[in-house]
Amino acid sequence: MQKKISVIVAHPNPKSFNHAIAGQAAATLRQLGHAVFYHDLYREKFDPLFGVGELQSSGPIPRAIGLYCREALESDGFVVVHPNWWAQPPAVLKGWVDRVLRQGLAYRFTDEGKVVGLLKAPTAVVFNTANTPEEAEREMFGDPLDGLWKKCIFEFCGVKNVHREVYRPVIVSSAIQRAQWLASAREVVAACFPA
Amino acid sequence: MQKKISVIVAHPNPKSFNHAIAGQAAATLRQLGHAVFYHDLYREKFDPLFGVGELQSSGPIPRAIGLYCREALESDGFVVVHPNWWAQPPAVLKGWVDRVLRQGLAYRFTDEGKVVGLLKAPTAVVFNTANTPEEAEREMFGDPLDGLWKKCIFEFCGVKNVHREVYRPVIVSSAIQRAQWLASAREVVAACFPA
Repeated sequence: MQKKISVIVAHPNPKSFNHAIAGQAAATLRQLGHAVFYHDLYREKFDPLFGVGELQSSGPIPRAIGLYCREALESDGFVVVHPNWWAQPPAVLKGWVDRVLRQGLAYRFTDEGKVVGLLKAPTAVVFNTANTPEEAEREMFGDPLDGLWKKCIFEFCGVKNVHREVYRPVIVSSAIQRAQWLASAREVVAACFPA
Repeated sequence: MQKKISVIVAHPNPKSFNHAIAGQAAATLRQLGHAVFYHDLYREKFDPLFGVGELQSSGPIPRAIGLYCREALESDGFVVVHPNWWAQPPAVLKGWVDRVLRQGLAYRFTDEGKVVGLLKAPTAVVFNTANTPEEAEREMFGDPLDGLWKKCIFEFCGVKNVHREVYRPVIVSSAIQRAQWLASAREVVAACFPA
């Protein structure tokens, strides 16, 4: 069955490996018959600043984020692609989370203060790139990004199946290695969003 | 001895409790004889988008962040104030981390790939506000912000002593409770940065 899938990429260089992953993900989804909402947040100059008027969740949705909000609600799945910067997403993508996954749209609280996720998408895929070898990073930091995307963001909004792949270290990778990673990305996307 | 302390606040509402904390921190530091670099990132319209030209750490520092970079290097301490949004800082503050704590300025890698922190400040204080009760949040998420600031950001840049206070839940707090929190903030700042 055709699905609507949001593909969100956040990297300042349009020739980045992140963009290659996002492009492969979008192409794979289209080949499988899905509709793709593709957003290159840097190219679109997405404004990441959650404004004072947005603190009231009942207030109007600012025009600049209206499309993003509608698509988030309509999406049957998400593919998010970004480099690991300080064990967090780049600021522009953090702003997408702050502004688009807003209270009243992506989640709400019951009168008892319980969180109710409102996104209908059951599945999300997160692709991260990193330059630190895995062992060094785990020793220094753990892997905060895993919990941030799975527990703090997507599960909070009702997206229960979150698959994450980390390709590393990109900076010293060979062309063959990168081709293998792109093949892996295609496989993961096809497995998570079958035709 | 007089110190130079950066105070960085990130909240869209200038009348927020975050601003009250930052104001008390700055006033306390000045009363103790310290110099304060005060930055209200929203008011200053700090541009959080790390640009493609910044990917090369040896490249020139963009003019828009020059002052922030110089002050980060000069600072003998940091006070950071922000609400907990998705277990992370608001996008504008994430952008300050992405852009100001840049490679070659706040940290570098040795030829063997070992991280060397370059900030001279030995101490940082992080004040967070939250609306979720502590127990509910720990159960859902753990406390990723603690590790993000302590391990992933400040220790990475060589700032070894990081003290963090979380005031919560702000949204249902009484005026008396907030006054107590502000007194706590003054005490923490004075203890971390004595005259």
